[in-house]
Amino acid sequence: MNKPERIDASTEETMLAIGRRARQAAHALSLVSPEVKTQALRAAAKALHAATPAILAANAKDLAAARAAGRPAAFIDRLLLDEARVAATAKGVEEIAELPDPVGTVLAEWTRPNGLAFQRVRVPLGVIGIIYESRPNVTADAGALALKAGNAAILRAGSESLNSALAIHAALISGLKSAGLPEAAIQLVPTPDRAAVGHMLAGLGGAIDVIVPRGGKSLVERVQKEARVPVFAHLEGLCHTYVDKDADLPMAVSVVLNAKMRRTGVCGATETLLVDSAAPAHFLPTLIKALLEADCEVRGDKAAKAADARVKPASEADWATEHLDAIIAVKTVDGVAGAIEHIARYGTQHTDAIITGNEAAAERFLREVDSAIVLHNASTQFADGGEFGFGGEIGIATGKLHARGPVGVEQLTSFKYVVRGDGQIRPK
Amino acid sequence: MNKPERIDASTEETMLAIGRRARQAAHALSLVSPEVKTQALRAAAKALHAATPAILAANAKDLAAARAAGRPAAFIDRLLLDEARVAATAKGVEEIAELPDPVGTVLAEWTRPNGLAFQRVRVPLGVIGIIYESRPNVTADAGALALKAGNAAILRAGSESLNSALAIHAALISGLKSAGLPEAAIQLVPTPDRAAVGHMLAGLGGAIDVIVPRGGKSLVERVQKEARVPVFAHLEGLCHTYVDKDADLPMAVSVVLNAKMRRTGVCGATETLLVDSAAPAHFLPTLIKALLEADCEVRGDKAAKAADARVKPASEADWATEHLDAIIAVKTVDGVAGAIEHIARYGTQHTDAIITGNEAAAERFLREVDSAIVLHNASTQFADGGEFGFGGEIGIATGKLHARGPVGVEQLTSFKYVVRGDGQIRPK
Repeated sequence: MNKPERIDASTEETMLAIGRRARQAAHALSLVSPEVKTQALRAAAKALHAATPAILAANAKDLAAARAAGRPAAFIDRLLLDEARVAATAKGVEEIAELPDPVGTVLAEWTRPNGLAFQRVRVPLGVIGIIYESRPNVTADAGALALKAGNAAILRAGSESLNSALAIHAALISGLKSAGLPEAAIQLVPTPDRAAVGHMLAGLGGAIDVIVPRGGKSLVERVQKEARVPVFAHLEGLCHTYVDKDADLPMAVSVVLNAKMRRTGVCGATETLLVDSAAPAHFLPTLIKALLEADCEVRGDKAAKAADARVKPASEADWATEHLDAIIAVKTVDGVAGAIEHIARYGTQHTDAIITGNEAAAERFLREVDSAIVLHNASTQFADGGEFGFGGEIGIATGKLHARGPVGVEQLTSFKYVVRGDGQIRPK
Repeated sequence: MNKPERIDASTEETMLAIGRRARQAAHALSLVSPEVKTQALRAAAKALHAATPAILAANAKDLAAARAAGRPAAFIDRLLLDEARVAATAKGVEEIAELPDPVGTVLAEWTRPNGLAFQRVRVPLGVIGIIYESRPNVTADAGALALKAGNAAILRAGSESLNSALAIHAALISGLKSAGLPEAAIQLVPTPDRAAVGHMLAGLGGAIDVIVPRGGKSLVERVQKEARVPVFAHLEGLCHTYVDKDADLPMAVSVVLNAKMRRTGVCGATETLLVDSAAPAHFLPTLIKALLEADCEVRGDKAAKAADARVKPASEADWATEHLDAIIAVKTVDGVAGAIEHIARYGTQHTDAIITGNEAAAERFLREVDSAIVLHNASTQFADGGEFGFGGEIGIATGKLHARGPVGVEQLTSFKYVVRGDGQIRPK
């Protein structure tokens, strides 16, 4: 059970002060040179390496508490840090340090007949609030990405990973300070009080420009319900792979297996396999057999059940459920039109793929499926900022405003219009 | 007084049905060719011309009611249509028809080392809700812009301009229908019930993707408070013009007069004149004299009062007030740094200008002032989508997410990632 939230004046005061410091830091960061940010992130990565023992000790405390609370194995695994994971986190920060600086990029420029010269120029967004749960490495990833884009970050870790997050945060800050950046550039909410989340969702008196939630359904639902500031929301990833009659079957088997089974718990994992009813008769049994042999439970429609006796019957709920597990729903559809229709009905506009050798079918699918990411002949598990070449991501957005798909440094910026004239006035 | 809002089952049902129809229309529009949209908008413009008598008759009803209700002259002027205004509205729709179609534009493309080819492609946003007040021409402008970007529009006109809006809407629809587009592409809420606004702000059961409010402070405040869907908000336009010591004085006088007085009621009108304390002694009296002679009330700090006896004393509130009237606040500041500081404190991140012949001062101002539009040697009254070359605007956004500054057809789009492979799977 969640603890009841009471109005806690001290938490509110703490949070508003965090907001004010973040706003000041954001102003300072917006004027910092690219080199200083790069240097600060390199120093932060080094500091993370150096702090490995302290981070692991803090993590051990969190792990002990989680085990004592009887948390499931998957939770423990998300929480667990070891030397390799800390090293990977530090490497992630190093990589973000070396990304091109997005701030100041001229996105467009044009001149009007009256001689006014317009530029649309990237600027930082301001203050980003990140609310996450058990993965302590988000502290470093999210803080570093926000900083690279010139933003201040307010991080709110899950209460059960707070010791680990605090240790990572301390290392980051020592790195930033060595480069002369303000400590408030990346703040971590020091209290496990759940009311802190409510204050962030209310915007901390106008101090937060956007909230990025990273966590399970209950967090995302709370954010959707309560947020009074814009949110880069990640709803469900109910991803589909459609195997067309003109698919290369070995490619289809390989891609479907990867899309479903590489990691079943990620948002880009395929949840439903759609197979063209006009496909050769051996397509369906071959695909199902490969999935079953990879220890995936298959729940199918009539045709799928007829293709293999081990297929369990799919219920209506299976088309609409993000299992995040070794379970796949299999359905036959009438060609690419049937696939598009099924995805429009049950999909979550996240990531969907078509496997086909038919260019016209592929282009139709890519155009008509209204998802953040649409793929032709590739695995839905590529739904990841790193795989896009973004050098990391703060999350994947399923909304259509501002950010859509992987949220990397560019998505953490805004823009302004810079207009240069020589005395132009506007006619009546 | 506003009428109390009661829960009206029939209004809710009407509004939800409007949402469902909009969602269907949006799906259809997203697949329509550029030519069909252009043709539909040309036909709509023609239909507007042809319907001029009906539109003027409907407008006469609204005007009579507004006069009977004792509405002020400025309100009547915003509501008033005549042949010239209807012709201008139709011309606006014609111009939007001829804009380049934004949908399908490839915004970026790159290939990863594994051979996956990525494209970021513009797509429509979906369903746009526009809530406006007395200007009936918004019906045509907003509907046409939304349509050009492939979106469905749900328009909610002010109750006092509803007859005019309905007549304009009928003409638009007859144009769209002649091109074979669904009537629900542009819907106008037929009820004057204020509860309709509340339903739109709640998102019509997920049918609305973004709300654009166009109106006064009380509407914008209601939207900010109640909206459960994203909003392209236009808060205040408290715009500044800073005259630097290195300004060309005749240019400064010309630009300041235009920025303040061309039209005092627009959001890009300058409200505060900042003058460099290091400027030659005749700058301040010359600028003030020109404003006074243009019938502008001048409220100033000590230096401004000393420069001209007709200057009234400015109170703290004057630095923070968007007068939208022939009133200007005048303050001396310590150079470009002082101007930047004043704007950071009192500005609304809308539009701010510097007048100077000093490139370094100009570049610092353009970089450090965090406003949607920053200008060098030009009037703040250029804050307008038409002047930017956007071919019209649905409003000006003062937020930093998705749209900032004038909201034209491009800002009414989203994007998706299209990824083409040849069987790529993601390694462990």
